[in-house]
Amino acid sequence: MRSNSRLSSLRKEIERTTHEIFSLIDKRLSLVRKVSEEKEREGISVINRDVERHLQNNVIEMCSGRNLDARFALRILNQLIQESVQVQLERNPVNSPPSVAEIFSKARRMNNAGKHILHLEVGEPDFAPPNQARRKLMKALSRGDVGYTESQGILLLRRKIADVFNQRYSRQISADEVIVTAGGRLALFLAVSSVVQAGDEVIILEPSYPAYSRFVTEVGGRPVSLSTELEDFWEPEISELEQQINPTTKAIILNSPSNPTGKVLDESVFRRIVGLANDHDIFVLSDEVYSRFTQSHYTSILEHPKCSYVCVQSFSKTYGMTGFRLGFAISNTKTINMMAKLQGLLLTSVPEFVQYSGLGALDSKDEVKHNVGVIESRSKAMNGLLKELPVSFYPPDGGFYFFPQFQNKELDSVDFAEHLLEEKGVCIVPGTIYGRRYSSFFRIALCQEKQVLIEAVRRIGEMLE
Amino acid sequence: MRSNSRLSSLRKEIERTTHEIFSLIDKRLSLVRKVSEEKEREGISVINRDVERHLQNNVIEMCSGRNLDARFALRILNQLIQESVQVQLERNPVNSPPSVAEIFSKARRMNNAGKHILHLEVGEPDFAPPNQARRKLMKALSRGDVGYTESQGILLLRRKIADVFNQRYSRQISADEVIVTAGGRLALFLAVSSVVQAGDEVIILEPSYPAYSRFVTEVGGRPVSLSTELEDFWEPEISELEQQINPTTKAIILNSPSNPTGKVLDESVFRRIVGLANDHDIFVLSDEVYSRFTQSHYTSILEHPKCSYVCVQSFSKTYGMTGFRLGFAISNTKTINMMAKLQGLLLTSVPEFVQYSGLGALDSKDEVKHNVGVIESRSKAMNGLLKELPVSFYPPDGGFYFFPQFQNKELDSVDFAEHLLEEKGVCIVPGTIYGRRYSSFFRIALCQEKQVLIEAVRRIGEMLE
Repeated sequence: MRSNSRLSSLRKEIERTTHEIFSLIDKRLSLVRKVSEEKEREGISVINRDVERHLQNNVIEMCSGRNLDARFALRILNQLIQESVQVQLERNPVNSPPSVAEIFSKARRMNNAGKHILHLEVGEPDFAPPNQARRKLMKALSRGDVGYTESQGILLLRRKIADVFNQRYSRQISADEVIVTAGGRLALFLAVSSVVQAGDEVIILEPSYPAYSRFVTEVGGRPVSLSTELEDFWEPEISELEQQINPTTKAIILNSPSNPTGKVLDESVFRRIVGLANDHDIFVLSDEVYSRFTQSHYTSILEHPKCSYVCVQSFSKTYGMTGFRLGFAISNTKTINMMAKLQGLLLTSVPEFVQYSGLGALDSKDEVKHNVGVIESRSKAMNGLLKELPVSFYPPDGGFYFFPQFQNKELDSVDFAEHLLEEKGVCIVPGTIYGRRYSSFFRIALCQEKQVLIEAVRRIGEMLE
Repeated sequence: MRSNSRLSSLRKEIERTTHEIFSLIDKRLSLVRKVSEEKEREGISVINRDVERHLQNNVIEMCSGRNLDARFALRILNQLIQESVQVQLERNPVNSPPSVAEIFSKARRMNNAGKHILHLEVGEPDFAPPNQARRKLMKALSRGDVGYTESQGILLLRRKIADVFNQRYSRQISADEVIVTAGGRLALFLAVSSVVQAGDEVIILEPSYPAYSRFVTEVGGRPVSLSTELEDFWEPEISELEQQINPTTKAIILNSPSNPTGKVLDESVFRRIVGLANDHDIFVLSDEVYSRFTQSHYTSILEHPKCSYVCVQSFSKTYGMTGFRLGFAISNTKTINMMAKLQGLLLTSVPEFVQYSGLGALDSKDEVKHNVGVIESRSKAMNGLLKELPVSFYPPDGGFYFFPQFQNKELDSVDFAEHLLEEKGVCIVPGTIYGRRYSSFFRIALCQEKQVLIEAVRRIGEMLE
């Protein structure tokens, strides 16, 4: 350093500038604390998306005239905002999030204590895995297929998956565009990780499977929710969706049939979303794990290949193979490679013999027909049962779930779920976990025999009297 | 907003401050570009840990007198530094990292094309999984144990693991302090994710398993490497380790026996590291997946419970169960719960029937004895074989690997590996992937029969002539 005085003086200036930056960050947080005082006085909510968006736009504008990378700057800004929210929450402790986990663990404890609980909460179907799936697994195990495989999954299974979907949707997907994952959940996480960087925004249609926003947060992204309403038949408002898009928007997550609402998006809606995604260079992450359980129309992202997408699928629901942890995804080769690299980093590969079970499952057409029939018949029954209760609901187009709303909208679903469990021995999922605004909703799964569903709904009815 | 002019003026001030912050960040990056020019002129390396540390200390000092959280500020600083490094690398493109993946995929292609390759690269032992492990798996599958389990793993297996280690190390570990994971790799990732936040530093002893630093980077942390040398018998310098510790240091990763060096840390070294970790409130993440393959002394972190730690274990190496993807970790309940939560988010749980195989494995003592004996005998043979070559090496205390250095230190291991594969059909791992400074080293695994090892070393010898 001594030999270069210019380097040394530049470093001093960098040091001074760094100091100034942090002085300003400190000043900014002091201002935020004052804002927090004002908000407390006025009873105003801590999070204000309009203010955030205004700041984001300012920063984007600043960057455009300079040699400053907008993605980098927005990442830093989003962290300043996050810290501000934190600082304000410390001052104004809001209600802690609903203790849904507590309800579930209480249900488990009651179960273990010998109490008979009717489980309407878990989306784990009661059908047995296809015999062919088990047989293929055991054969592989006996044969000694017990080693590491390619992180992307064995070629045999990827080829078979490509074949099935090429036939179903007249596509030309290659085995390179398929990854076998340790479950559909992981496929979605790998997709989010590959597509989203820290500071990026991801649009999520609410009510939604809670893992979506947690995945986004996990990689440092910001989930942006677009709420849909029972009154609109859970139809997303495309103009609202468009308003949420900004240069940091990297993806939109779709889930049709939806968990929890059972909504299947119309083809026209799908086409408009894909159009927007294409215009704004956004990925569509389409979680289609319930796609076989549709009672009428159904559209897959695979029928709309005009935008970047990841299509997520799983063996769990279709084949009753939840405990196998076997899923897959279809996307472009580049994204699949990124996903495979990350799966390799985390897991090396999916257990080799488990991958062979997928080959057996894909040949089990009769079992799928049976499983779909079972859910359809339970769904019909549930439709009739819920009509007798003081609840409103959208009759699901597909999937495993009903998502009814109490006619008395003041009823809080967390309270209700707690009392229902304690007094009636029935476990449901409070709507709050799918988005705070759904506190007067609850989710019931069609994963139990009809008799159990009938009895459970009877008790829910008693509770609602 | 209209109703509260104070709130509105505070917001304006926040906006102005935000603008200033980003102007300064922009200015800082311009200065960095100038530094880069100077460095280029002088041929100085882009990364300068002393300068970084100086900036970190400044920021820590600033925070101490203010209402500014040091962890938050250092996280932001580390990102500014990271962006600066990026900006400089763009100006001064260095050699791209060695294309090790290319060598491996070439080996695979050659294999597929029918060429017989001697694989000394993969650390996947050739022993079959214990019969009891397979049997337990098949029984569980037939019984219908094919559902989701607790994310932490089935109680039966966690209890058994606790029992085994309590007996081995006279501890009182409870099943709550154990998590069953989808492989040792994932256990380590879950540990890093639970312990390390963005901007935190993690000390890694080099040469090291490359996944360590990738895990740290994945969660936004900064890997800090502490290199060890063959000349020092791969012994870490504790005083150097202490110098690397600062308030953002959150963990140190140990791996004894080491991949790739085969070094087993002395008990006294372990004790001193644990002492430092305790003094500075740092987690010790101890990857002990090779612990059964030790030829003399061996110390586990479980014998040093005086600091926060996560002990990572796996069924893969000990039992020849790589393709089962089954591992586990032992830590305090709080950390285990965080790890379980993240595993639940990513995977729901490990496949239920695979967890049962672990019960069978833990009863397979004879198989372990056999496997350990096999590796020991190969290790002895390799010791003799390598002595005849123009290489220097530390005779491993344990593990699966040898990590020799060319006597001609100018030889680049990536080049060497490429030529060895093409001309002699032998695949090895270049030392560079364990740390840039190890370019004159290479790793060979003891996972092939002795005859293969003998032939492979003969060809390596030819290549070195």
